[in-house]
Amino acid sequence: MATNTLSFTKMQGLGNDFVVLDGINQQITITPEWLRQIGDRRFGVGFDQLLLVEKPDHPEHDFKYRIFNCDGSEVEQCGNGARCFARFVVDKGLTNKSRLLVETAKGVIEPELGADGLVTVNMGAPRFLPEEIPFIASTNEVLYELALSTGENVTISTVSMGNPHAVTVVTDVETAPVESFGPLIEKHERFPEKVNAGFMQVVSRQEINLRVFERGAGETLACGTGACAAVVAGIRQGLLASPVLVNARGGQLSIAWNGDNQPVMMTGPAVTVFEGMLPAASK
Amino acid sequence: MATNTLSFTKMQGLGNDFVVLDGINQQITITPEWLRQIGDRRFGVGFDQLLLVEKPDHPEHDFKYRIFNCDGSEVEQCGNGARCFARFVVDKGLTNKSRLLVETAKGVIEPELGADGLVTVNMGAPRFLPEEIPFIASTNEVLYELALSTGENVTISTVSMGNPHAVTVVTDVETAPVESFGPLIEKHERFPEKVNAGFMQVVSRQEINLRVFERGAGETLACGTGACAAVVAGIRQGLLASPVLVNARGGQLSIAWNGDNQPVMMTGPAVTVFEGMLPAASK
Repeated sequence: MATNTLSFTKMQGLGNDFVVLDGINQQITITPEWLRQIGDRRFGVGFDQLLLVEKPDHPEHDFKYRIFNCDGSEVEQCGNGARCFARFVVDKGLTNKSRLLVETAKGVIEPELGADGLVTVNMGAPRFLPEEIPFIASTNEVLYELALSTGENVTISTVSMGNPHAVTVVTDVETAPVESFGPLIEKHERFPEKVNAGFMQVVSRQEINLRVFERGAGETLACGTGACAAVVAGIRQGLLASPVLVNARGGQLSIAWNGDNQPVMMTGPAVTVFEGMLPAASK
Repeated sequence: MATNTLSFTKMQGLGNDFVVLDGINQQITITPEWLRQIGDRRFGVGFDQLLLVEKPDHPEHDFKYRIFNCDGSEVEQCGNGARCFARFVVDKGLTNKSRLLVETAKGVIEPELGADGLVTVNMGAPRFLPEEIPFIASTNEVLYELALSTGENVTISTVSMGNPHAVTVVTDVETAPVESFGPLIEKHERFPEKVNAGFMQVVSRQEINLRVFERGAGETLACGTGACAAVVAGIRQGLLASPVLVNARGGQLSIAWNGDNQPVMMTGPAVTVFEGMLPAASK
């Protein structure tokens, strides 16, 4: 059997890594078996997500992109991936615009490339109503007390950035109980769809240190929506003023939010690690 | 600063993975910082070892190859890497021979490519004298009783394949105490340079199932020298007859040994996963 090859680009944003494929100039067949194989870090390329760049469905948009996990599932948008997507289409000459309109499974996003090489992504407006998180609560508050199964209480802010977040303020992110409280918050019965648990140390009104225990994944190097949720929660509590520098384990992000129904703007790096050619999935 | 790019090939043998570089047609500067960066599976390419193909020092040989860990250290030869090396130089047209003479840090090896795509590597003759392992024992035996710190005893055969191995016969490799006994054998005081601990289930006189707790690494998908050591130990005990099929977690190897001072011949797969281009180390 003749095997076609497929060009790909390996990219990372804050250590969150992606295989990015040009599905406009290449015909690409994605199967769950192929994703599992290419996603394996020893028998394949390895990635957190695979990004597939396609033509838009609507002519007023520039691109469409789809996001896959290595388990074969198609997933919602991810801020680190959106920055890598934008860097990719510009570096590959697929567009000469620096501001893009891009269709995703969760709606249209508008990434913008800066002259400094950083990419800004409109992450949408945060949502706070309990049923929008979803979070079980009888009133709509900025802060809630959450009773853990250990008998301890944590004070949280809840924010939806398209996915649910619970943010706790800690005095020192290095000694914060991320590993012990993280899974208890993530699977707490008041979050029917589970939750991403953020632990934020306020360094100044414009800088935080952040660690996030991600839903279904455990602690990660950097969670884009977690950084947005933490800054929004800090601004709502009067602890922070936009824009805020977020120090995550995998690097730095700048998060801006003008309050209320305004969108959260996330600015950060997107790095091309290497270019590759791999065997295409057999038909 | 202009950045040069470097071609590489990502390969694997039984899940042991390698970045292979042609250092004959490319000028390559290897630094410890660069190895750490390229060895990172998110911020770089990721590999167990990096293989650098060079011209031989002596004209009667075909190639020289050097092996680096991602911590920057240069290491001894590895059977899975030797197979990938041989497949690489043939696939890249660097030679048209199917039997090669290759200089390594541990001497000359002779990999041979079969028509079936498998590669056979001469792994050298096994050594059994206690001081050659090294193993602390007053007599030279095929089997020794090793008293563990838990009060339990295990019966082992000791073999050096250039590195030290202790092999134990078990009834079922799936339920074998690899995780509990492995570290105790590895660091046992009678092995002054520590030891690789193999757990072998005899399926028939020509087939074994094998798990290896590797020195300094823990259990791995497949250990080439561990497969050789296990088959040699089984043949010496009269349990096995050459050639023997070895089922490891990462795949299958065939091991042949004609006894005494004869070399052990290891045959197995070497797979090209993808081709890549990466930024070269800055000078």
